Amino acid sequence: MYRTHTCGELRIADVNKNVTLSGWVQRVRNLGGMTFIDLRDRYGITQLVINSESKSGLSAKADELGREFVIQITGTVAERSSKNNKIPTGEIEIILDEIEILNPSELPPFTIEDDSDGGDELRMKYRYLDLRRTPVRRNLELRHQMGIEIRNYLSEKGFLDVETPFLIKSTPEGARDFVVPSRVHPGQFYALPQSPQVFKQLLMVAGYDRYFQIVKCFRDEDLRADRQPEFTQIDCEMAFVGREEVLSAFEGLTKHLFRKVKNIDIEDDFPRMSYADAIEFYGSDKPDIRFGMTFKNLTTQVQGKGFKVFDDAEYIGGICAGGCGDYSRKDLDKLTDFVRKPQIGAQGLVYVKYNEDGSLKSSVDKFFDAEQLKSWADIFEAKPGDLLLILAGPKSKTLNALSELRLEMGNRLGLRDKNVFAPLWVVDFPLLEWDEDSQRFYAMHHPFTSPVKTDLELLNSDPGKVRADAYDLVINGVELGGGSIRIHNSELQKRMFEVLGFTDEEARNQFGFLMNAFKYGAPPHGGIAFGFDRWVSLFAGLDSIRDVIAFPKNNAARDVMIDSPSPIHQNQLEELYIQLKSTE
Amino acid sequence: MYRTHTCGELRIADVNKNVTLSGWVQRVRNLGGMTFIDLRDRYGITQLVINSESKSGLSAKADELGREFVIQITGTVAERSSKNNKIPTGEIEIILDEIEILNPSELPPFTIEDDSDGGDELRMKYRYLDLRRTPVRRNLELRHQMGIEIRNYLSEKGFLDVETPFLIKSTPEGARDFVVPSRVHPGQFYALPQSPQVFKQLLMVAGYDRYFQIVKCFRDEDLRADRQPEFTQIDCEMAFVGREEVLSAFEGLTKHLFRKVKNIDIEDDFPRMSYADAIEFYGSDKPDIRFGMTFKNLTTQVQGKGFKVFDDAEYIGGICAGGCGDYSRKDLDKLTDFVRKPQIGAQGLVYVKYNEDGSLKSSVDKFFDAEQLKSWADIFEAKPGDLLLILAGPKSKTLNALSELRLEMGNRLGLRDKNVFAPLWVVDFPLLEWDEDSQRFYAMHHPFTSPVKTDLELLNSDPGKVRADAYDLVINGVELGGGSIRIHNSELQKRMFEVLGFTDEEARNQFGFLMNAFKYGAPPHGGIAFGFDRWVSLFAGLDSIRDVIAFPKNNAARDVMIDSPSPIHQNQLEELYIQLKSTE
Repeated sequence: MYRTHTCGELRIADVNKNVTLSGWVQRVRNLGGMTFIDLRDRYGITQLVINSESKSGLSAKADELGREFVIQITGTVAERSSKNNKIPTGEIEIILDEIEILNPSELPPFTIEDDSDGGDELRMKYRYLDLRRTPVRRNLELRHQMGIEIRNYLSEKGFLDVETPFLIKSTPEGARDFVVPSRVHPGQFYALPQSPQVFKQLLMVAGYDRYFQIVKCFRDEDLRADRQPEFTQIDCEMAFVGREEVLSAFEGLTKHLFRKVKNIDIEDDFPRMSYADAIEFYGSDKPDIRFGMTFKNLTTQVQGKGFKVFDDAEYIGGICAGGCGDYSRKDLDKLTDFVRKPQIGAQGLVYVKYNEDGSLKSSVDKFFDAEQLKSWADIFEAKPGDLLLILAGPKSKTLNALSELRLEMGNRLGLRDKNVFAPLWVVDFPLLEWDEDSQRFYAMHHPFTSPVKTDLELLNSDPGKVRADAYDLVINGVELGGGSIRIHNSELQKRMFEVLGFTDEEARNQFGFLMNAFKYGAPPHGGIAFGFDRWVSLFAGLDSIRDVIAFPKNNAARDVMIDSPSPIHQNQLEELYIQLKSTE
Repeated sequence: MYRTHTCGELRIADVNKNVTLSGWVQRVRNLGGMTFIDLRDRYGITQLVINSESKSGLSAKADELGREFVIQITGTVAERSSKNNKIPTGEIEIILDEIEILNPSELPPFTIEDDSDGGDELRMKYRYLDLRRTPVRRNLELRHQMGIEIRNYLSEKGFLDVETPFLIKSTPEGARDFVVPSRVHPGQFYALPQSPQVFKQLLMVAGYDRYFQIVKCFRDEDLRADRQPEFTQIDCEMAFVGREEVLSAFEGLTKHLFRKVKNIDIEDDFPRMSYADAIEFYGSDKPDIRFGMTFKNLTTQVQGKGFKVFDDAEYIGGICAGGCGDYSRKDLDKLTDFVRKPQIGAQGLVYVKYNEDGSLKSSVDKFFDAEQLKSWADIFEAKPGDLLLILAGPKSKTLNALSELRLEMGNRLGLRDKNVFAPLWVVDFPLLEWDEDSQRFYAMHHPFTSPVKTDLELLNSDPGKVRADAYDLVINGVELGGGSIRIHNSELQKRMFEVLGFTDEEARNQFGFLMNAFKYGAPPHGGIAFGFDRWVSLFAGLDSIRDVIAFPKNNAARDVMIDSPSPIHQNQLEELYIQLKSTE
């Protein structure tokens, strides 16, 4: 037997027990003729001691030990003279009888400490060593716990965990599909699922009523920061429900997770915000509502006073940064630089300082008098000491820039505390997006998303105005999940395909088996899918999903530890009836 | 709201309640001026009634209904005059007020009944309709329940559910790998995992101590009955353990599942049998020990009496079929035909009938006298009324044929009851298999499997004799899972690669990152993986894993519902830098 206890288990009540422990050598110190070894495993750290009364030879053995050696020891639990109240085992130590080296270790390429000295690349390459670090392990323990809680909660609510296939079919629009050549069927391919969307709808047609799955999905996307080619969804679907039932079910799940995992009780219903309001007041479809600082639209108010920047702008709007009236010239220049960054793209920044003495000072004093500035301040309900920040330009771009500025000011003012959580349902998304290039509508979610019932008429008269019966769960500005009520009526589905400019044949080719299934009694249904990686990283207080994935890929979709993707053998290619295209 | 109750919920206590139900029309009957509708959902069936007092027009509406229409009804719960005690809702019916057709249905291509009239192919093509059938739904509900129980049990025992990657690396021996061309890295490929073996070992190196995952795995195998290209494993690994700890942990899991899912308490430790004994006494490494009928080796006993078939045979052995002494000539001919089938391949069958009067009658009376036959019967401890069945030939082939014969006799004698479960650990597998063609040893499990400690010496002197520290869990002749203690010592691993005939470079190419990881303090570890599909089908009393998979592929690895695999567009191929090989 390799151990009687783990390294996180022994307490003062265990003193005098003879114990066997196994683990990794965290460090070895010689101090006043004694040797101290910190022994580490998943469960904690225990201090081992060799003192003057120890068996001869033990000290010599200890001298052989290096960091990350795997050892097995036996010894007797003793009370420590100088206790360490930072760790649960800090009141005891083990007076050693024996040390056996189970496996030596080369010197690791970085330190296995909470704050490692290893850079990103190195830690990715030696991910199995990075995983030894306590903060990384805690992230994966959190992920485990959340998975268990989600499954048990949904199972208790009658949701069935059903596995859907990974080797599915590529669709003509599946440009981001990973494909898998078949050895048995030459020239044919499977595709890996971007989501189990179609299968969960088929399960509803099959009468399964409530379905969920925590499942890997795949998307061969152009690489962006914090995207992984494989990611994990909490995928859910319900039958005989409308929007209210879906939101209520998953608000329940969310509150359950907060309570069980974060020890936070959320009593109130989550607020809801229309997509239109989210854009108008936050410039984003995933507003961070931990703080206000909502946009005021000044367009009609400020035009026609001879300030060309305003007069030419489609939209003028701003925010009121409470208590920032004392910002220096330098502070304001920095903010101006911020909004002018290419990825934000504003032309400039107009400010109005509401001084403590009640006077107002702006960057546009030439064009606007004190009374006018005061009327702006009133719109913002600003108080002396506040700072108005105003952007002008094309509406969509300016709203977006203002959103970035708002988040930046939220950060500066400490309004985005990672321990505060503000959930929000964003609802009533547009059903369709017009694409200028192809001169056609695209489905904003997917072509099965149901229009809001009261907007059905508009589908003929003004399709761009139709709202979808779709919803997103947003927490702290992070879109955790989204879904919709689906179209279950084949007439409406047909109409939808027409609006999307699909011919009958295109629709059949792409969604034939789903449309076929719908002929045999499809119930009303709807669902939602959550990004599990994102949810874990939100709860872990992390900015990246990479840190909650055991073996992530880097930003080039490469696993640098196993060196994948990589070339394969010619005979493998031949067996698959494919060859590499010569890259001229 | 689509419903106040499900179709499985209402009882006599609900009489007079006004309710709304939704579901599928199972059938409509007109009887004595009344109309009866069976309404079905996942939860059950409820009878709806239109009688002479019902609102006018309701009957006409009911006449529109066809099988599998989705309807919503309101009505009042009433006590039935003729109760149906076969279903939980059989004491009540709903007197209808309203019927709304939510979705009509075309006539389904087969009946949605427990015993469907649809053939295999048709039910696969319309799997979403097949899934509506109660027995199929029960299989998936069982699968759900088992998944929940497994996860909660292992989680309580300190196992962490860690997701390992799906897009991994193909290895030179990965002939059965599915590969995935990379769009971002031209000419390079990911591979789908045949198992997370390497990653779970890395997690042990990373100190995770106890890991599990219920995870899809992929194998592009030559197709055999009851194999699926994608299948689900319960994958587990533990650190600082030997064989005893692993067997004890997973015997615990197995007993837990029997208790929770099958309501069967297994008190005793599971029996263990060496691989050598399993082959010697059952002719199989996965013996069905629900019944005895073990082999007796007669080779030395029966040779040298002039019967050439015996004298030329490497092995002669048999079984005693209790109570079959009255088998007719025709019965025995059938058994002879059975063992002569090409897939079994025996040359013939020798029988000895132990008559009730104590006399013995055999098919080899010419060569053996009564006394000799009696001595055989004594070896089998046969009683009057029993039948000895004896095969002779090359050892391995004959043992295998005898195993098939034993199972056949077990079936005939009703000794293989699907409600009786006999778990067994098979241990001490050979470490290596000699391959005549390539004149080298292969690892029977995989190259990380540890030899049994006491056999280490043999690794140099007689590698073929070395036993592996490996184990299989076998229940009722089904191999549910298998695993091993792994080699954690890099010297031993190096020696193992030598025995397997790997050059240093080959070993590095194939397992480089794992061997590299082992340099940094690998703990002793071992694990096991179970076939989840097989386990569910065993518990469901099914012979095929296909019936416990929501969307299975057929025996040609094809999903006939979605028609996959299928050709992909030329531009997709181009984006992936591959082209189809012309098939001359």
